[in-house]
Amino acid sequence: MNVNSWTFDRQSLTPLYLQLYHQLREAILQGTFGAQRRLPPSRQLADELGVARITVSQAYEQLVAEGFVVRRPGAGTFIASQLPLALIEETHTAETPFQPQFSSWGQRVMATAVPSANKQPKPEIDFGFGRSFPHIFPYDIWRRLLARYLSTDDVMLSRYGSVAGFFPLREALADYLTRWRSVVCTAEQVVIVNGAQQALDILARLLLEPGDEVLVETPGYADAAALFALNGAVLTAVPVDDAGFCLDQIPARSRARLAFVTPSNQFPHGGTLPLERRLALLQWARQHNTLLIEDDYDGELRYDGRPLAALQGLAADERVVYLGTFSKVLFPALRLSYVVLPPGLVRLFVQAKQLIDRGAPTLTQAAVADFMREGHFERHLRHLRQAYGQRRHTLVAALQTHLPQVRYADEPAGLHVMLYLPERLAETAVVEAAAEVGVGVYPAAPYFMKRPSPPAILLGFSGLSESEIAEGVARLGAALAGLE
Amino acid sequence: MNVNSWTFDRQSLTPLYLQLYHQLREAILQGTFGAQRRLPPSRQLADELGVARITVSQAYEQLVAEGFVVRRPGAGTFIASQLPLALIEETHTAETPFQPQFSSWGQRVMATAVPSANKQPKPEIDFGFGRSFPHIFPYDIWRRLLARYLSTDDVMLSRYGSVAGFFPLREALADYLTRWRSVVCTAEQVVIVNGAQQALDILARLLLEPGDEVLVETPGYADAAALFALNGAVLTAVPVDDAGFCLDQIPARSRARLAFVTPSNQFPHGGTLPLERRLALLQWARQHNTLLIEDDYDGELRYDGRPLAALQGLAADERVVYLGTFSKVLFPALRLSYVVLPPGLVRLFVQAKQLIDRGAPTLTQAAVADFMREGHFERHLRHLRQAYGQRRHTLVAALQTHLPQVRYADEPAGLHVMLYLPERLAETAVVEAAAEVGVGVYPAAPYFMKRPSPPAILLGFSGLSESEIAEGVARLGAALAGLE
Repeated sequence: MNVNSWTFDRQSLTPLYLQLYHQLREAILQGTFGAQRRLPPSRQLADELGVARITVSQAYEQLVAEGFVVRRPGAGTFIASQLPLALIEETHTAETPFQPQFSSWGQRVMATAVPSANKQPKPEIDFGFGRSFPHIFPYDIWRRLLARYLSTDDVMLSRYGSVAGFFPLREALADYLTRWRSVVCTAEQVVIVNGAQQALDILARLLLEPGDEVLVETPGYADAAALFALNGAVLTAVPVDDAGFCLDQIPARSRARLAFVTPSNQFPHGGTLPLERRLALLQWARQHNTLLIEDDYDGELRYDGRPLAALQGLAADERVVYLGTFSKVLFPALRLSYVVLPPGLVRLFVQAKQLIDRGAPTLTQAAVADFMREGHFERHLRHLRQAYGQRRHTLVAALQTHLPQVRYADEPAGLHVMLYLPERLAETAVVEAAAEVGVGVYPAAPYFMKRPSPPAILLGFSGLSESEIAEGVARLGAALAGLE
Repeated sequence: MNVNSWTFDRQSLTPLYLQLYHQLREAILQGTFGAQRRLPPSRQLADELGVARITVSQAYEQLVAEGFVVRRPGAGTFIASQLPLALIEETHTAETPFQPQFSSWGQRVMATAVPSANKQPKPEIDFGFGRSFPHIFPYDIWRRLLARYLSTDDVMLSRYGSVAGFFPLREALADYLTRWRSVVCTAEQVVIVNGAQQALDILARLLLEPGDEVLVETPGYADAAALFALNGAVLTAVPVDDAGFCLDQIPARSRARLAFVTPSNQFPHGGTLPLERRLALLQWARQHNTLLIEDDYDGELRYDGRPLAALQGLAADERVVYLGTFSKVLFPALRLSYVVLPPGLVRLFVQAKQLIDRGAPTLTQAAVADFMREGHFERHLRHLRQAYGQRRHTLVAALQTHLPQVRYADEPAGLHVMLYLPERLAETAVVEAAAEVGVGVYPAAPYFMKRPSPPAILLGFSGLSESEIAEGVARLGAALAGLE
């Protein structure tokens, strides 16, 4: 055995004996101790390596505990006799790494385009969306609420939470949704999920067989569509107009099991589904025995008054699943969303969730529950609506000045505006031209389920100040003028 | 319209106008305004109801915004003419609620026994397991680390986290696992998951087709077995002995795609898989092209020295997925687990996770990363090992005194002991007899994949003081004596 090649890092956090253990273990696994299977006496090895004898003893002890070596009193330390050295060598020197064979689900995951992390330098003025505006969040209150549950001896920390969510949070949500969104529900129907995607995944698995049809909006929430497709669904893309989902464009032969809609503010086009379309959609769903999934991802964020009533509350036949999230109105890093389920779905949904995921962190849920119950949530929403409403106003005013040729659904809601560009412009060229003047805008093509899609870009305004918004649109207008 | 039946709660948090809006909306949906479709003038309705006129105006405004009514200047407020009243009535008075049809996955969820929440009063001395011992946790440090990331303007809060986990936490884990568990990995192979169940679910979906075979231990981790079965796997249950997984009991015809094992401390029997069995298992897996999943749910908790090396580090052919969790060593409410993936699985696993769940809360991950990097984690583990080691010692000593007739794997590790009872005793009778003397013990039958199972109970010791443990075992001994 040649110990001269062994190295020790005396500055490392890893104790010396552990460093020695790793090297001894590797030497055993490589078969370098030869047929005699005897390790050097600890005093001898310590001298050769220039370490304390206790270091060697501790390393040997670990090897004994793990079964690599045995001590024979009076004779020394030997590689365990029952260890098949040939097997070790064979096992340890296998050259071909494991090649996984993927299931059809795995192959669909592989085929699903997942946007890669943006490697571009962050633009000076970034109209990214799906962001909150962190400056308005009441951090002091939030810290105080979290601290309340951080005391020792608290069951919040020492036990697993409830699968369906922390009950006081479910109660606070049921109360809030009933009062502000006309959702009809009890706290038992509200289930806390780790993001809307989780709720959609569970619903798809519970309700869809491969080949089942699902209606989605186009343009629409691409991740939801991807999830249904992943679970084997056949998608039917229904176009939207400025008033949202176009019911009359559902194919007559449709036998959809599920329809995914965004009635409060169509994503990403913008627009609120009018009452008569809501009623007609509910009637269509009843005639076709379709379950509707209402994704109310930012229904709180209306700037012309209070939020509008949800579709869920209009359906007397328990046919609507309502999805909401705290990502947009508190902060995304919370990862807390919620689903209001029809009574007939609650038990099985929770049972499925229990099998795949034991529930969200109790501590955060408790803090959010208090945040809601003590009035901070509704106050925070008012602040958000004011701040975002002003930003949206600034954005629209700048668009009218600098980009009069673009169309958009002028809905006083949401966190972005989707601009339909003149047909002769290519979306990618616009994105690139904007990037060259330090402005980040985002292509709309990924949100269209039917090709070719009209040229369009998305401008999120929630992460920018009003002056940045005005400046960004001015630069974008100049960049577009350069393209024409 | 009869407004006399309408009620207002002046103490409610819900503004009066919102209370009125809800009642007006319901009246419209019920068709009680008749053919004229005209709402009373706001002044008149205010007088009838004894509320301010502005209250009525605000309620009407909300109904206008939602499309229920329109204002005709000079004529009054009318139910919107395009609203099909017959349709409203039909939609709103549907009598048969939606009846979901469940998929085969949904039907398997329905058929899976999920333990119902324990409705029994909490026993005086509860040998429950899967709990941490909250008194030892360094709350002050934890609070300080959390507060560090709670400042305003922090990207921690305002952006979605990385799907694979917060990178500094993945680095801290890779470093820790390399140093202390001989896991061979880079930070890129470490992925943060929302509980081990989520990792198993994604792996099962990526790798299994319905009908594929999976090896599980019996007794074993029932939730993992349930998850594989849920995803269509055919389970082969392999018995364990005091040294863990019995390789020689794998059926010769086995073509398992996956094997789920707990080599560090077999769950729930107890016992550490010896080195020669580990090597033989790796060889078997290579011969059968099987992926091994090593669940190291409490590998840190050994009381006779430092933790033992993981199986993962012995496999040179990237054939082992390693699962670990913070639930046992920090606190369960964190809901943070991690998986170390073979390089060939990382990309697809993360892509799947991105589609179904955008990642764990960044704030907590950042705090845990610092907790590890600043040495608190390893110090805390030493404290835990000391506290739990003493408790386990007390438990075993009490068992020798009061229950000499029971057998158990005497492994100085873990958070519970599994007692095999004399064959003539029925498990349920023992659990009930213990409950009658105020002692909570837990049946082992749910962990056996083959029936009938030997009578056995589980005693967790991590939530009790040493005197409670001694007293609990004494009571249990007396209760068992009464049964014989």
